[in-house]
Amino acid sequence: MSGAGSVDETEEFRPRFGPDGLLPVVAQADDGTVLMLAWANEEALSLTLSTGEAHYWSRSRQEIWRKGATSGNTQAVEAVLCDCDQDALLYRVRQNGPACHTGRRSCFYRMLTTSEGGVSLVFTDPS
Amino acid sequence: MSGAGSVDETEEFRPRFGPDGLLPVVAQADDGTVLMLAWANEEALSLTLSTGEAHYWSRSRQEIWRKGATSGNTQAVEAVLCDCDQDALLYRVRQNGPACHTGRRSCFYRMLTTSEGGVSLVFTDPS
Repeated sequence: MSGAGSVDETEEFRPRFGPDGLLPVVAQADDGTVLMLAWANEEALSLTLSTGEAHYWSRSRQEIWRKGATSGNTQAVEAVLCDCDQDALLYRVRQNGPACHTGRRSCFYRMLTTSEGGVSLVFTDPS
Repeated sequence: MSGAGSVDETEEFRPRFGPDGLLPVVAQADDGTVLMLAWANEEALSLTLSTGEAHYWSRSRQEIWRKGATSGNTQAVEAVLCDCDQDALLYRVRQNGPACHTGRRSCFYRMLTTSEGGVSLVFTDPS
């Protein structure tokens, strides 16, 4: 503990995991594309830092998940950044293949549009 | 309800808010910079869509928060995207001034570094 400064100006890493023990993680490619949002618990973060490969916590399966373990679409983590209040992470990654389980490069392939009928989705990546 | 297809291939917007009623939202600038991660409940999202200005739910203050209401550092939302399983959002924004309350452009201004002493943070934007 350095004890110095607020959480947003310290060099001390004091991650503020949520009540569920998780932090949201944004995975971003070299060209700036946001590939996905996933979750890390302390173990997943530790594995990411020690192996250089992105690990997450699967909320649906309730287990540690090495990205690409099944699909081969791994993520080599070039940098891990934390935000000002240390409750979110950003992984800069070299993505092997598509990031999304649908085969699309990014999980963010639909845009919200509003009309009289309400909100619907438009595909920006139809593949 | 279209009723057609899985949540990841439908044009129907069926946001899957968490048990706390929130979705994580990534705010990204035109040049690809990830500016911040914040949270939206149904009302914040609705206000964002109806006004074109980013609104979030402040978990610390437990209230709706129009980004820049106090600081003037507003976000004009050019597009709202949702991810494959509809439990995360991406706002493409024109950021007025810095996004971070510390005065830095992005909230992600520190990088994790590992050494024998453990994990510490290195400032990538010292301003």
